[in-house]
Amino acid sequence: MNADPLLTRLFAGQDRQLVPHLSVDCAIFGFHEGQIKLLLLRWRHLRAWSLPGGFVRTGEPLDGAAERVLRERTGLDRVYLRQFHAFGGIDRGEDALLPAFKAMGAKPPPDHWIVSRIVSVAYFALVDVAKVALRPDAFSEECRWWDLNERPPLLFDHDEITDLALETLRAQLDYLPLAANLLPEKFTMPELQRLYETVLGTSLDRRNFQKRMLDQGSIVRLKERKTGGAHRSPFLYRFARSARSRGLTP
Amino acid sequence: MNADPLLTRLFAGQDRQLVPHLSVDCAIFGFHEGQIKLLLLRWRHLRAWSLPGGFVRTGEPLDGAAERVLRERTGLDRVYLRQFHAFGGIDRGEDALLPAFKAMGAKPPPDHWIVSRIVSVAYFALVDVAKVALRPDAFSEECRWWDLNERPPLLFDHDEITDLALETLRAQLDYLPLAANLLPEKFTMPELQRLYETVLGTSLDRRNFQKRMLDQGSIVRLKERKTGGAHRSPFLYRFARSARSRGLTP
Repeated sequence: MNADPLLTRLFAGQDRQLVPHLSVDCAIFGFHEGQIKLLLLRWRHLRAWSLPGGFVRTGEPLDGAAERVLRERTGLDRVYLRQFHAFGGIDRGEDALLPAFKAMGAKPPPDHWIVSRIVSVAYFALVDVAKVALRPDAFSEECRWWDLNERPPLLFDHDEITDLALETLRAQLDYLPLAANLLPEKFTMPELQRLYETVLGTSLDRRNFQKRMLDQGSIVRLKERKTGGAHRSPFLYRFARSARSRGLTP
Repeated sequence: MNADPLLTRLFAGQDRQLVPHLSVDCAIFGFHEGQIKLLLLRWRHLRAWSLPGGFVRTGEPLDGAAERVLRERTGLDRVYLRQFHAFGGIDRGEDALLPAFKAMGAKPPPDHWIVSRIVSVAYFALVDVAKVALRPDAFSEECRWWDLNERPPLLFDHDEITDLALETLRAQLDYLPLAANLLPEKFTMPELQRLYETVLGTSLDRRNFQKRMLDQGSIVRLKERKTGGAHRSPFLYRFARSARSRGLTP
């Protein structure tokens, strides 16, 4: 295989388009038919999986790099994507990439930052699986959803990143802009409860759930009811404007 | 003034001890006699103030760099110090340092990372002002506590960092390892309430506060009472072991 020209330039120190030592990684969770899934990429030549991620370009804000990764892998824009932690240990397994670079015909100098020290700023998102068009990146041969419990062991420290992402997602579930990605503008209480149960991985008491949601003041009951079902028509709700707008500030 | 040899080496690209493009900044809040304060440094030659911070050394974990900054400025070790956000905008005001470097006799090349693009990972801590021995760093001439409301405008994006740190501190106040730095091992309910009131900047209802703390299960009432006061001896409390140990995991 011919040497990858991008990598060759980078390893020769001639590429100034990337901010060295820095990357973003995205734990993208998918909500689908009452299940929660995780988006993973399989690296070429490694047969091993990682979270989607990328390097940060010169002149690109950190958040912009994460938005680009999400957009390029899923086609999604303007979804709730939140930074949650910078992973900066001194051995995050960067050298796992050496065999892949070698197979691409590009050999980094032994002390090159790309195989020795990368600090990764991690983001998480929760998206609707049905709205996503998946695309692998230049270094990967496959990009697909995995059941959380059946996922393969991940490259680098991505298992640790995934665990903390999931913990943060669960802790921030009441932060409604996150849920607003996944429900129609008007939704029923059972639809909202199903979302919570899926993310939390547990079943919730119907009456307690309803009381807690209404007490928080973040959703509003409408006068309309949902029609067309076999059962008694349930009330419709929407998110309170204050809760929605809170999500627009970082 | 002679050129600073450290800076001269760094600007000539001969210093490989620092991870380029990366820094840590620490919002260190101090608790003292019912007031909350912020630790600031005044930069030499700039007469302007910033949060304490520093660069990350090769072979040093990100968290280690923040612990070093805290230790070097305050003498404190093993206090609750928590990463809360990476600031990665494309113009964080890095070029504010140019006049200071010039006055030190060191002139960075125009595109040097130190004056063009730095991503800063921010940490916060809450410490007991009485336990601290303050020391400025090599680039600063003064290091002191400021009342939050009277602090000067800060260099770079440090006002934004401070605001988010304070918001995070308030949101995590129930996370008890943070409070455990500041109270004796056995404390009274009024002492705990005073701490909450100081950090939140508001007064709280005594009975509701007591009920909430006990319902959470994170503090335990002891059989002993505090003696020696003029009033009826109040009960003593300690943090529940489970709450304390939770704080040891990141």
